[in-house]
Amino acid sequence: MLKRYLPVLQWLPYYRRELFSHDLTAGLIVAIMVIPQSLAYALLAGLPAVIGLYASILPVFAYTLFGSSRTLAVGPVAIVALMTAAALAGVATPGSSEYIAGALVLSLLSGLMLTVMGFLRLGFFANFLSHPVISGFLSASGILIAASQAAHLLGIDGAGFTLPTLLANLAAQLDDTNLATLAISAFTLTFLLGMRRYGRQSLKRIGLPAKLADLTAKAGPVFAVVLTTLATWRFDLVADGVAVVGNVPAGLPPLTLPDFAPSLWYSLLVPALLISIVGFVESVSMGQMLAAKRRERISPDQELIGLGTANLAASVTGGMPVTGGLSRTVINFDAGARTPIAGVVAALGIGLVTLFFTPWIYYLPTATLAATITVSILTLVDIAVMRRTWRYSKGDFSALLATLLLTLMEGVETGIIAGVSLSIALFLYRTSHPHSALVGRVPGTEHFRNVARHQVESHEQVALLRIDESLYFANARYLEDTLYTLVAERPQLRHTVLICSAVNLIDASALESLEAINARLKDSGVTLHLAEVKGPVMDRLKHSDFLETLTGRVFLSTYAAWSALRPSMAGSNEPMRPLG
Amino acid sequence: MLKRYLPVLQWLPYYRRELFSHDLTAGLIVAIMVIPQSLAYALLAGLPAVIGLYASILPVFAYTLFGSSRTLAVGPVAIVALMTAAALAGVATPGSSEYIAGALVLSLLSGLMLTVMGFLRLGFFANFLSHPVISGFLSASGILIAASQAAHLLGIDGAGFTLPTLLANLAAQLDDTNLATLAISAFTLTFLLGMRRYGRQSLKRIGLPAKLADLTAKAGPVFAVVLTTLATWRFDLVADGVAVVGNVPAGLPPLTLPDFAPSLWYSLLVPALLISIVGFVESVSMGQMLAAKRRERISPDQELIGLGTANLAASVTGGMPVTGGLSRTVINFDAGARTPIAGVVAALGIGLVTLFFTPWIYYLPTATLAATITVSILTLVDIAVMRRTWRYSKGDFSALLATLLLTLMEGVETGIIAGVSLSIALFLYRTSHPHSALVGRVPGTEHFRNVARHQVESHEQVALLRIDESLYFANARYLEDTLYTLVAERPQLRHTVLICSAVNLIDASALESLEAINARLKDSGVTLHLAEVKGPVMDRLKHSDFLETLTGRVFLSTYAAWSALRPSMAGSNEPMRPLG
Repeated sequence: MLKRYLPVLQWLPYYRRELFSHDLTAGLIVAIMVIPQSLAYALLAGLPAVIGLYASILPVFAYTLFGSSRTLAVGPVAIVALMTAAALAGVATPGSSEYIAGALVLSLLSGLMLTVMGFLRLGFFANFLSHPVISGFLSASGILIAASQAAHLLGIDGAGFTLPTLLANLAAQLDDTNLATLAISAFTLTFLLGMRRYGRQSLKRIGLPAKLADLTAKAGPVFAVVLTTLATWRFDLVADGVAVVGNVPAGLPPLTLPDFAPSLWYSLLVPALLISIVGFVESVSMGQMLAAKRRERISPDQELIGLGTANLAASVTGGMPVTGGLSRTVINFDAGARTPIAGVVAALGIGLVTLFFTPWIYYLPTATLAATITVSILTLVDIAVMRRTWRYSKGDFSALLATLLLTLMEGVETGIIAGVSLSIALFLYRTSHPHSALVGRVPGTEHFRNVARHQVESHEQVALLRIDESLYFANARYLEDTLYTLVAERPQLRHTVLICSAVNLIDASALESLEAINARLKDSGVTLHLAEVKGPVMDRLKHSDFLETLTGRVFLSTYAAWSALRPSMAGSNEPMRPLG
Repeated sequence: MLKRYLPVLQWLPYYRRELFSHDLTAGLIVAIMVIPQSLAYALLAGLPAVIGLYASILPVFAYTLFGSSRTLAVGPVAIVALMTAAALAGVATPGSSEYIAGALVLSLLSGLMLTVMGFLRLGFFANFLSHPVISGFLSASGILIAASQAAHLLGIDGAGFTLPTLLANLAAQLDDTNLATLAISAFTLTFLLGMRRYGRQSLKRIGLPAKLADLTAKAGPVFAVVLTTLATWRFDLVADGVAVVGNVPAGLPPLTLPDFAPSLWYSLLVPALLISIVGFVESVSMGQMLAAKRRERISPDQELIGLGTANLAASVTGGMPVTGGLSRTVINFDAGARTPIAGVVAALGIGLVTLFFTPWIYYLPTATLAATITVSILTLVDIAVMRRTWRYSKGDFSALLATLLLTLMEGVETGIIAGVSLSIALFLYRTSHPHSALVGRVPGTEHFRNVARHQVESHEQVALLRIDESLYFANARYLEDTLYTLVAERPQLRHTVLICSAVNLIDASALESLEAINARLKDSGVTLHLAEVKGPVMDRLKHSDFLETLTGRVFLSTYAAWSALRPSMAGSNEPMRPLG
């Protein structure tokens, strides 16, 4: 029991010294690598950069105790930062102390929601974000983030959370572009894109071992930060109008108590829920992918608790909403982390930086951070997935496109809510018009096939109807329609057999429809039979009077129904017309 | 084409004189019978009583032209009247001219929505009202209506649209009960309940033919209206404080133009949608039931157009929202109506009353009408359905109960919206945890059954997994979980066969999951196969790369998969453990 809720007990007792060397190396690498992105995502959320560091310390410890993934690295991530900014825009002005307090409340609410959902085992909720919706949402978020960072790249003021407002803001201020900032941005973008594209091969060519070359290439943002910070300090670019991170109080994260104003809580409730779910989905899909690579397992419900406590930790140490981050986790995994100890090492490293080295980032230009975000975020826009989805299913693609456009035009919250609603509506629509087929016997066998597609034996007095869907409220009336049409079109019909091999559920609405069908077919002199009813469905039907009132029988197989019901072999080869 | 949108053309050309005698009798009976309820429902909606008559004239003509049911009788009905009152309470005070104008806008909006939905063939939308939700909603509405009529029965002022406010209002004013009104109410209630319970038998016993006895018993409200009106006039009960219908302008329904104020339209949009859908569902289920009795068919999409034009007609002739009414339709059907001509006769009859006889209802007490509503509405509270639903499925019952309680506590709109959401959530939840079973071969046959339930042949290197659900976003991750657990628990496993006989759909999310499963099983040295994939699902899969990347094969039958994959007969009888 304790082990279930404290996964740390599953691995810590078996921790061996040789694992530590792996974890130590990985942890130190992660600590250095994630500092630029932690700063950057705090700025993206409209918060002081140092909050990104705070949110990378205690939350990691919490996740180590309660999380079920061995390699997931939690901290601020781009999408959640964007959603945080959008949520807080409604309650305070960026940079104000109310705004910072709002971020703590958001972490707290999100932490509470995730933890409670974990204890209630509500992890399946995340499944309602379908892949097309996630894909459309991530692409749109990538575009929105890039558009919001464009202002920082140009050295002008940013504003807005939808594409039209962001673009209008850029257009209005384009003349105010700061050239020194633009130079830094251009350098950083070129450097990062170059490192990403050619870094690994070039470093290998000059003699570095493959693994080191890979890591060095991935450390591009670290080099960019160091180079541009030095340049800004050396050439006093602040005087030329380059915005820098500036003064950051050195010291450990402050202990903070989130604000308990009910109106603030109320207005952040829906954003916190959306942040929780989006963050959870992003984190858990990645965790599952990496766990599978090492044949480990993660538990989605325990992940909720892990991420929940991480957010609670963030809320009491001056942080912001956190989740499992793609890039930091990949760095951790690639650097050879074996257990969450690697995360602890990284958190301690970032703690040291926060404690002693914040003056060193005074001259770090925000444009460098914006460039870092922009380059890493572009991978979110996934054209290949869109093309594949379009090819596979126009319905799924329409959900993707609607989510993408609504997120761009109306913002992250509207986009995701509309996407989820659309996915659900699409599924209900698909299942509300079930495919059904009249089947006949493949001569000489016990197999039955669609009379419209195959040469099969059938009889005009017996209709064998296979329903290819669970029967529930959305298609119950459709089923009635189908059967009444069948009966109206075939005056000779005496027996109708519903073949239920694909019926996994009959809900109360469908049961009423079946009762109505049974009664009306009886009035018309047609007997209703069932065949191939599944065990769980049959168990349920026994809790109603349906089986007693059923005019016909329940056959174990279609063949049994066919054998019992066809009146004689004479005239039975006459082909049946398919359903109109 | 024309015949499709004007069903009147399907039967009018074949109209024979002998049908007319049936329709004439039925129409005259309906005209007399529905006058009291038309007046009553207008009062229930907070409107002047005569509007109930107006709404029973032109809408009937419109439905005759465009409706597809031969026997449905449209006009004001109780539930729609209650919803009308709830909707208008937000925009005007009952009885004011704005209130009456609001009713016209509601009819117009509802008419437009229904008509447009009909042309777009969106009749299936109504299916999202599951039977348990409808049942809970109707029961709660019945209770709400009875509680709201209690004030009229006692002769005090009514107020409120939720049970707590209605009861609080009653309790506060109980001392103001008007004794003369109470006497009329008590008489009418006793009379109506007596007629309903004993009328038919008693009348038969004194020698009336069965049919006439039946009709006379059903005419109870007409007698009550006549008796109490005469008593009120004769004994001048108005002086004793009995509220009466009062002055009604004689004449045809006025031609009216609904208000076009955008703010009014906007605030009535959601109520109009709910009224449309609830009215449509009530009407169409009854229409289908009666049509089936005569082996006729109705078209739900055409019904939308029929009811839509009826509401448009109501909006231009001083009416209120209308739909097919249960009691008026049953009277029409039982009185022997053969075609909508009976409805036309009834409408002409009511038109005559409106034109010449409104002074006669001056002394009609509103308490009589309230008693009429109360008695007829009690049938909506259906305990038997609740008990049946509880027995059949706790999940469906919880949807019913939630709808019932929320309708009582929060009002009709919240109740119905919550009920629909809950039904959908319940269905998604049910399908998000699909039943799956490892199957093995029934010795000596081509049949395969659950290894946990039957003695069957299996092999530790081959897992045959039957998935009993369509694969879509809500269960895609669950499928991954199931398969990874299977692989993790069976180190000897070489082949996994997904048996898809119950898979009616694979959406884009599930496809991605299948691709991920395929790739990860490949990493683990396990080959993934499919079996019994349905035609439509296979067609769709061909629009993706999945079949090319699939490590295994697609088998037509489970037996074919079994024959091809089991390595040898030796050791194959070892039973497999069921999935944990």
